[in-house]
Amino acid sequence: MSAFIHNAWYVAAWDHEITGDGMLARTILNVPVVFWRDGNGTLQALEDRCCHRGAPLSAGRKEGDAIRCLYHGLKFDCSGACIEIPSQKNIPAKARVRAFPVVERQHWVWIWMGDAALADERDIPATPCLDHPDWNYIPGYVHYDTDYLLIADNLLDFSHFAYVHPTTLGEGGADEYSRSLPKVERLPNGVRITRWLIDQPPAPFYRKIKQWDGNVDRWNNYDFVLPGVLLMDAGSAPTGTGAPQGSRAGAAELRSYQALTPETEGSTHYFFSQPHNFAKGNPALTEAVHQGILTAFEEDRRTIHAQQRSLAADPAFPMLLLGMDAALVQFRRLVDEHIAAESAGAAETVAGVA
Amino acid sequence: MSAFIHNAWYVAAWDHEITGDGMLARTILNVPVVFWRDGNGTLQALEDRCCHRGAPLSAGRKEGDAIRCLYHGLKFDCSGACIEIPSQKNIPAKARVRAFPVVERQHWVWIWMGDAALADERDIPATPCLDHPDWNYIPGYVHYDTDYLLIADNLLDFSHFAYVHPTTLGEGGADEYSRSLPKVERLPNGVRITRWLIDQPPAPFYRKIKQWDGNVDRWNNYDFVLPGVLLMDAGSAPTGTGAPQGSRAGAAELRSYQALTPETEGSTHYFFSQPHNFAKGNPALTEAVHQGILTAFEEDRRTIHAQQRSLAADPAFPMLLLGMDAALVQFRRLVDEHIAAESAGAAETVAGVA
Amino acid sequence: MSAFIHNAWYVAAWDHEITGDGMLARTILNVPVVFWRDGNGTLQALEDRCCHRGAPLSAGRKEGDAIRCLYHGLKFDCSGACIEIPSQKNIPAKARVRAFPVVERQHWVWIWMGDAALADERDIPATPCLDHPDWNYIPGYVHYDTDYLLIADNLLDFSHFAYVHPTTLGEGGADEYSRSLPKVERLPNGVRITRWLIDQPPAPFYRKIKQWDGNVDRWNNYDFVLPGVLLMDAGSAPTGTGAPQGSRAGAAELRSYQALTPETEGSTHYFFSQPHNFAKGNPALTEAVHQGILTAFEEDRRTIHAQQRSLAADPAFPMLLLGMDAALVQFRRLVDEHIAAESAGAAETVAGVA
Repeated sequence: MSAFIHNAWYVAAWDHEITGDGMLARTILNVPVVFWRDGNGTLQALEDRCCHRGAPLSAGRKEGDAIRCLYHGLKFDCSGACIEIPSQKNIPAKARVRAFPVVERQHWVWIWMGDAALADERDIPATPCLDHPDWNYIPGYVHYDTDYLLIADNLLDFSHFAYVHPTTLGEGGADEYSRSLPKVERLPNGVRITRWLIDQPPAPFYRKIKQWDGNVDRWNNYDFVLPGVLLMDAGSAPTGTGAPQGSRAGAAELRSYQALTPETEGSTHYFFSQPHNFAKGNPALTEAVHQGILTAFEEDRRTIHAQQRSLAADPAFPMLLLGMDAALVQFRRLVDEHIAAESAGAAETVAGVA
Repeated sequence: MSAFIHNAWYVAAWDHEITGDGMLARTILNVPVVFWRDGNGTLQALEDRCCHRGAPLSAGRKEGDAIRCLYHGLKFDCSGACIEIPSQKNIPAKARVRAFPVVERQHWVWIWMGDAALADERDIPATPCLDHPDWNYIPGYVHYDTDYLLIADNLLDFSHFAYVHPTTLGEGGADEYSRSLPKVERLPNGVRITRWLIDQPPAPFYRKIKQWDGNVDRWNNYDFVLPGVLLMDAGSAPTGTGAPQGSRAGAAELRSYQALTPETEGSTHYFFSQPHNFAKGNPALTEAVHQGILTAFEEDRRTIHAQQRSLAADPAFPMLLLGMDAALVQFRRLVDEHIAAESAGAAETVAGVA
Repeated sequence: MSAFIHNAWYVAAWDHEITGDGMLARTILNVPVVFWRDGNGTLQALEDRCCHRGAPLSAGRKEGDAIRCLYHGLKFDCSGACIEIPSQKNIPAKARVRAFPVVERQHWVWIWMGDAALADERDIPATPCLDHPDWNYIPGYVHYDTDYLLIADNLLDFSHFAYVHPTTLGEGGADEYSRSLPKVERLPNGVRITRWLIDQPPAPFYRKIKQWDGNVDRWNNYDFVLPGVLLMDAGSAPTGTGAPQGSRAGAAELRSYQALTPETEGSTHYFFSQPHNFAKGNPALTEAVHQGILTAFEEDRRTIHAQQRSLAADPAFPMLLLGMDAALVQFRRLVDEHIAAESAGAAETVAGVA
């Protein structure tokens, strides 16, 4: 049984990683893929392995709307069809490489690694603040040498804030994260986690970015949806202004979009951003927010890599499930169900059940 | 069948490696172990893998008589029991990590990796000169990237002195080691190797440390006991003073305590010391003895690593047994017997058969 | 079934690699071999693994016509027989290592890894220009981290010249190599590839080394014979001087001798030379020819290593056979036939079928 869900949209890159001239080679779900732009600048994705002798096309040459392999000169169009074999006129029907559906949406490049007939752009999760004049952020990427599910576990349980991030995300104690559990709801295609703290002093991070006259209502709510995308709405607003009812008067708001994309069974691409609406005209603040999150994510990476080494030394290690694991257990079950359904030949897609 | 004897005391560390404040992470017989001192300074050893999600406790924090995991904050006491889960009141009975019997004895830290009910401190081999005012030494440690048995082989047959150590341990020819074989006796828990050379010129090493007026009697006798501990009594005394009968009048004496502790099937911790009684008030001489042995042990390591690479290239390579292999064959048979007995569920310990 | 043909002569070294005093350790077909010269300077080759405990003899010491292992002192003569065990008089009949037939021929050292009774020096391919006063070259060696057959594939199809070597071997377009296919004939022990271009402008390389008054006839003909030896005759001569009929009047000629010798299933020794008859008294030109080929071979290595990584990521990848693959398909079939015959116990040798 495959280790991955295939019929789903995965984030493959930031759009700026694929320039007009260049080619980006990146392995996704164990498959080498070359990303490039055709003559119109439209994004294309082909299997990065020539059908002839297996040389990577990314070591080849763009020729307008085609890529030429620089081992024996086979040329492929955007559909993956071979359109030239220099030493022969006849081109066999089998002379082609896989082409993958790709979509550029608000600076993220999404790829569909499964059955192309099932790919529907409407199933791509919305990330509006990635491309909106009121919101600022710096694109983030980190590479992990671990299974993506260990990172998903981490993102599905913030009770680690006080211990992994005592001076960053958990600054000021973060007791609210470790001493109590959030509300966890099952979504058709993921898990929803909700946490409101009413009438509290502002958290250290929010005190740095804004002047507050009294207590605030704080929220930290996110969906974590298949195949591994976190969509967060967080912020603080003066108590009494109706934030829990939906008002954002006087609020400082933060979004977080994070996407885990397996490279192999043991490595992961991690794309992230922290759009915020309180730094207009203040790029230094946006840079500070980004550096802060990078520092915190490095703390996570160190912890998860240590966990991975520990688990690798004993594959039979039985994890002990605790209350804080409610969300990750539900998410892992969803993943298993989808992989099993795909193995069984079901044409069900991640979004199809949403 | 396991590759290791478990019901035995292994040297895990020099006591100075585990300071009052710190934690030492070390893998023993494939098991990650964290060594630390409780509030009284008493040594403790726990499995270095949190029972929750597998994070190493050695990346955590000491809190008095407990260790807190710095992933999700679980806290463990010296018995390995979890005594706090920040986000919930109820602590499941399964929330614990293994605790291992540990004993500090004359600067060596001994650990018992098997059935704790069978651990008996009286079975720890005696190493009196590791903590005696008349004897000097410098603690030694070398890490090997090989199976510990290849190192045991080396220590059980000194006929390699003339070839591996021509300018160090075998200085002066060492013909006595390669041209003749020592007396080998089977002990209940190991092998005893005895070699006396009567009325010979002093060996180069002994000429450096003491003035001799004539020939000497030289001895080099050691036990090599399970699971892999060498206890040597060596020295030279003027011929005619009765050394073979037990007198040590006018003698220069050297002890060697060496312990092999498997880290994994393919790597080994090697602890060693060369206590001697002829360097009181002369730390430079003790340093010279230590540097000499380090140089020789590096010669062994180079040889054994080369041997290991050669064997790895052909796992079916049949070693040819020769007369010089008598002791190592007996020791390897003892190891196999103990592993088989443990596999069969016998409660027999290494010392229990001594 | 073995991955290699054993009953064949392989190039193991350039003769200058094995000096009078030294020992050369080199793995051939997974077997560690030590090459050395006896007291007469005659080349010898023994298995580089002492029959006692497996230590490499190449870490030992030459003693006249013998090698002594520097672990426990066993001494071996040129036939591989142990002739001394320091600690015992009796030498068991099993105390020996394999000896391999080796032949020095025109600066190449050939070794026979199979049944020694089948080795016949007359089966060694002729490489006369490696030792002839009219021909100059510099000995070449490159190490590959790939299966040798991927390199053989490359050498059996020059249609890659225009794509892999646009500024070196394929300088000037090399359309003749990619747009048309050479004549391919099956030999009993290999493949013959013939390509004549009649009445063409001289190729860039040949324009650099000689003044031409008009068009030339160009040829590029080679045999690629088992187990992996390329023997090329290339050159250019003024059109009309009868080159296709065998005349070499006014010609500039180049030979290429190249030999692939598997180190392991995934690594290869690659020996090569480009003897030429147009650089007498001009060592700078010979050096330039050599540097040019080194640059081109580095282009090949980069390409083939990329191909290897790509294939390793999907062992089930089905290569698509095209017209340009005719020669390599025939050669791979020959290799398979020989391996199968050896597996079946046939005493057939590579040359025996020639």
